[in-house]
Amino acid sequence: MEVVEVHPSVEQYAYTFGGVAPLMTVRPGQALRLWSEDAFGGGLRSTGDLLSNTPAPPGLNPQTGPFLVEGAQPGDVLALHLVDLEPARDTAVSSLVPFFGGLTGTDTTALLTPPLPERTWVYHLDSARRTLAVELTSGGFSAELPLEPMLGTVGVAPAAGEVRTSLVPGVFGGNLDTPQMRAGTTCYLRVNVDGALFSLGDGHYRQGEGETCGTAVEGAMTTTLVVDLVKAGELGSTSAPATPRLEDDDHWMTVGTGRPLEDAWRASQVEMVRWLRELFGLDDLDAYQLLSQVGLAPLANVVDPAYAALAKVPKALLPRPAGSAFGGVHARLREAARTLR
Amino acid sequence: MEVVEVHPSVEQYAYTFGGVAPLMTVRPGQALRLWSEDAFGGGLRSTGDLLSNTPAPPGLNPQTGPFLVEGAQPGDVLALHLVDLEPARDTAVSSLVPFFGGLTGTDTTALLTPPLPERTWVYHLDSARRTLAVELTSGGFSAELPLEPMLGTVGVAPAAGEVRTSLVPGVFGGNLDTPQMRAGTTCYLRVNVDGALFSLGDGHYRQGEGETCGTAVEGAMTTTLVVDLVKAGELGSTSAPATPRLEDDDHWMTVGTGRPLEDAWRASQVEMVRWLRELFGLDDLDAYQLLSQVGLAPLANVVDPAYAALAKVPKALLPRPAGSAFGGVHARLREAARTLR
Amino acid sequence: MEVVEVHPSVEQYAYTFGGVAPLMTVRPGQALRLWSEDAFGGGLRSTGDLLSNTPAPPGLNPQTGPFLVEGAQPGDVLALHLVDLEPARDTAVSSLVPFFGGLTGTDTTALLTPPLPERTWVYHLDSARRTLAVELTSGGFSAELPLEPMLGTVGVAPAAGEVRTSLVPGVFGGNLDTPQMRAGTTCYLRVNVDGALFSLGDGHYRQGEGETCGTAVEGAMTTTLVVDLVKAGELGSTSAPATPRLEDDDHWMTVGTGRPLEDAWRASQVEMVRWLRELFGLDDLDAYQLLSQVGLAPLANVVDPAYAALAKVPKALLPRPAGSAFGGVHARLREAARTLR
Amino acid sequence: MEVVEVHPSVEQYAYTFGGVAPLMTVRPGQALRLWSEDAFGGGLRSTGDLLSNTPAPPGLNPQTGPFLVEGAQPGDVLALHLVDLEPARDTAVSSLVPFFGGLTGTDTTALLTPPLPERTWVYHLDSARRTLAVELTSGGFSAELPLEPMLGTVGVAPAAGEVRTSLVPGVFGGNLDTPQMRAGTTCYLRVNVDGALFSLGDGHYRQGEGETCGTAVEGAMTTTLVVDLVKAGELGSTSAPATPRLEDDDHWMTVGTGRPLEDAWRASQVEMVRWLRELFGLDDLDAYQLLSQVGLAPLANVVDPAYAALAKVPKALLPRPAGSAFGGVHARLREAARTLR
Repeated sequence: MEVVEVHPSVEQYAYTFGGVAPLMTVRPGQALRLWSEDAFGGGLRSTGDLLSNTPAPPGLNPQTGPFLVEGAQPGDVLALHLVDLEPARDTAVSSLVPFFGGLTGTDTTALLTPPLPERTWVYHLDSARRTLAVELTSGGFSAELPLEPMLGTVGVAPAAGEVRTSLVPGVFGGNLDTPQMRAGTTCYLRVNVDGALFSLGDGHYRQGEGETCGTAVEGAMTTTLVVDLVKAGELGSTSAPATPRLEDDDHWMTVGTGRPLEDAWRASQVEMVRWLRELFGLDDLDAYQLLSQVGLAPLANVVDPAYAALAKVPKALLPRPAGSAFGGVHARLREAARTLR
Repeated sequence: MEVVEVHPSVEQYAYTFGGVAPLMTVRPGQALRLWSEDAFGGGLRSTGDLLSNTPAPPGLNPQTGPFLVEGAQPGDVLALHLVDLEPARDTAVSSLVPFFGGLTGTDTTALLTPPLPERTWVYHLDSARRTLAVELTSGGFSAELPLEPMLGTVGVAPAAGEVRTSLVPGVFGGNLDTPQMRAGTTCYLRVNVDGALFSLGDGHYRQGEGETCGTAVEGAMTTTLVVDLVKAGELGSTSAPATPRLEDDDHWMTVGTGRPLEDAWRASQVEMVRWLRELFGLDDLDAYQLLSQVGLAPLANVVDPAYAALAKVPKALLPRPAGSAFGGVHARLREAARTLR
Repeated sequence: MEVVEVHPSVEQYAYTFGGVAPLMTVRPGQALRLWSEDAFGGGLRSTGDLLSNTPAPPGLNPQTGPFLVEGAQPGDVLALHLVDLEPARDTAVSSLVPFFGGLTGTDTTALLTPPLPERTWVYHLDSARRTLAVELTSGGFSAELPLEPMLGTVGVAPAAGEVRTSLVPGVFGGNLDTPQMRAGTTCYLRVNVDGALFSLGDGHYRQGEGETCGTAVEGAMTTTLVVDLVKAGELGSTSAPATPRLEDDDHWMTVGTGRPLEDAWRASQVEMVRWLRELFGLDDLDAYQLLSQVGLAPLANVVDPAYAALAKVPKALLPRPAGSAFGGVHARLREAARTLR
Repeated sequence: MEVVEVHPSVEQYAYTFGGVAPLMTVRPGQALRLWSEDAFGGGLRSTGDLLSNTPAPPGLNPQTGPFLVEGAQPGDVLALHLVDLEPARDTAVSSLVPFFGGLTGTDTTALLTPPLPERTWVYHLDSARRTLAVELTSGGFSAELPLEPMLGTVGVAPAAGEVRTSLVPGVFGGNLDTPQMRAGTTCYLRVNVDGALFSLGDGHYRQGEGETCGTAVEGAMTTTLVVDLVKAGELGSTSAPATPRLEDDDHWMTVGTGRPLEDAWRASQVEMVRWLRELFGLDDLDAYQLLSQVGLAPLANVVDPAYAALAKVPKALLPRPAGSAFGGVHARLREAARTLR
């Protein structure tokens, strides 16, 4: 299976979902290998580098894309199967950005308290051991954390002619910041405009749930993925996702976004009730009951302009459903991906 | 090690944290085996039983206790190590309660929409296989779920003379409804009144994170635990928990409560920053950074009058701290518990 | 009409709603003149006095009461008509309390940012001109604000055996902190325990909507009120308030409490839909429509452990209802009060 | 003073802020008289008309504009002084839209409860008496409400290349839905793109605070306004608005947007602290204190994708500030407007 490689030039990055001309046209079934710059535009490289003392990047969360998917029309389902995520540099950084993060006043939770101090941490990748070493200022120890690469942003052009910055998550995907967006996962997004116009970026070498301080271990990434499309006419009894859905070999997942956090959670839960209903032929109340007893609810981010929360159902806890999600596209792409690595 | 058994009579249950005379006095180091009634007072036994068509119980979430801990004074830390949780009946139920649950209007999120229909599900315990079988109304299949017993409520008398119903979680513990409150876990609570006056109940044979529909698989439970006390004077550099802390062999956990859900999350995160700071001698910003990259954030409940969210740090991801939490009480109780089973 | 005067001794103040023995028994129809201490227990008198450098009071928001109302039973409606509020001192204070207020991290919105500085402002009452003069640190001017006395706290013992601190508002009233709790207003509260056990305190010489910094112009107050009772059996088609209702000559008002603020707002709106429905014989949707076009929505507090928001309907905008609220008790007490002044 | 009249054709309406080519170029100081269609595109005219049984409009909240303001550059302040709002039809409607409004599950607060029934109310304008008569389904009376025209939407193109639907409010203005956006008010908005590109629409013949059911008395409107510009270089010690500011003869007002509602409120309060600080030369704490005692906090909407709350300070309560807001543009435009009517 052929893989098309894309490494954008600095001028080619996009900073919004929607509102940008396509970088390239791709066909359903095609494999891509995409280089993405880190959230800070690569400008922070040492502990002395802060957003306030380095040249301002053209924007944060530069996106590789958008890609126009041939034949994609509003109401279709775009399936992006992440095959492999590999760090594209041997260092990554996390940085405290003034008035940003979960435990400080912010632009969206405006307070009179001054900002927390800025500080940057550099993580050194040991490719062989697949670990990340970080030097702390205090405590006298160096933490060595497992490498667990993921993408902060995967999204399509929004509906209703909207254009959103790549810092915002929503029903179009975007800056979801969930550790579940990793190799082995298929991401389902409703297509809102002709060609879908998806893009991705904001690689994280690892991230805790919630992304508490506002930034993960931010690093340039090489992402291998396979693109597919489920046409609206093929959906049958399955509806197009009202909010992003994820699937891996072991879980069905839905991602709700919004504020307050309970509204993000509600969105994830209602979407999962809908999905269980469709997969198993349940009524609403039975699906509600099942989810209540088997669901996991890992948070994604509680720091972005909209928060993101997941409903996550382990497939092993339930019987095998009669049909598969979206006609079995995850299994099919999983299989196709084997010919890639 | 001797175990004191308590099986309250119907009149002995408590329905509040605080405001109730002690059921018994216990010493630090003592083991207890406590029978607790289910959240519905045992009144729902078949799918035809609904809260609206069965005799009203004296209250919901009946508590076994409170227990007066000898020597406990405000500012001390009560440590409750859960040794074993065993279902005390072979059926358990979950029921949709009108205007209660995460995906409907409620008393606290008041709307004009009518309530969802009532429905009760009965779960049959297979003790040998340790599974729970439930018959659904729709879908034509019977789900068989793993037994994973936990306690919905563990708490002490609140500070400031307050008395709270056993339906509410807070900094005193109470109706936290987290699946982490299970065998092997030590729960740390700040003592607010002389004797601490702890109680427990609301057994769940299993529960999903968030407890979406409002009720778990509710069942009578036999809980074996060991009680211990860390005196304020022995805390050293560790502060008494501002909100409940949990510890098992593999994790440090903090439980934040409140509304909106981001405030519950913030409370859990700030408490974990404090804990990591103390364990590792870090400054605030380094602890904030570490938590951001290693923390898990499983939700507990998004349905009670206050929500509950956890910060959960895997011990394996970090170096071994110089000292142990609260002087190593978890390991000590874990060891003591071996002589019990 | 005779007025019973009560000026509690320091030891007689209550600091909770519920959990306190009655200070006195009163009959429906009786008038009272109550002296209440300020929120800080009278401990802050000059700009140099801060909570951190003055002796800690036994509690904040000392309550005058509770009063046992003869014949009051759960389900009845207690009507408290505020006849007159007069400052009981010639100075009052507002003070920034660390980690308290609307524009800082707090106990309930926990953050890592340090507290704002403490500062105390003293307001000097000019009784003749009915103004309050305050000296500011900056700006070089002295603001002179109209005296507009109100009570921060009016409440009854909560339901379900709960005891709540006088810092918390809820369906039992309590620390609502609304400027509408002023002379001329009748406050309706559902009775939860035999005797109702109401108390009041937390006088404000004036307060902005939201009580942004956390404290109003806090001062000792002399409150003249008339107590009345509407028995459950007399309610007819009117339901007992699910959350506090207020009435003055010109408005019907409901006070919702909770978090997030939209939930407090929703509670106020649903209760007003219910009230309009009852007053005018409307269905839910027509009442919803009317409220949407005529309602005012002034905030009360956005700083306490629960927030409070009001729905406020000007009587002049609507036709005269067939009957009066709670059998016309407001007009009756208004009339009775004329014989008092 | 000359007035340019604009009555867009059906194809000329805009449905977003940003992303639309200018309809016309205007100069600072110019007066405009703009016809705007109602929120439903004029499609609902009788009580039998519901969104579900009438032809779908091209969008909701059609905007008249955008207007390119000559010389406007990012960082400047656009001042729009509303001189006169006159109903452009003699009927207006309010309608319950499924899954929209404050007291039902919605797209953003997703629940499993079914939608409330649809219903449309028609309001008949009596131009002479300036009243609106509505027939209710229940209750047997016709309410006659004062005409109080306002605009739901006034906004500019957003920053960061974003395009937002005309249903959303934000720091760029947009669907604020505040009754304060009425004749006599000057609206200040930060310019984000060259030419500012402002538009307006969504006329309301009246609206309650909060817009509880989701729609006001929606009607076509003729708006007379004067456009002005304060260049960044002329701002002096006054900062460009971080969120919309309003001024009328008697009040300074700031409009915060966001979710949860306390975050919208915080945004309004922090912006007002900033404004008072600048107007009176105060430090943050003194401005915080003053606002706490004199501020009003009327809600705007609690139904749109972002909520809107106001901080409102009566000028009469404070001394006369040394300078005027934005160099006295409100007074100047107020004066200029006298030559228009």
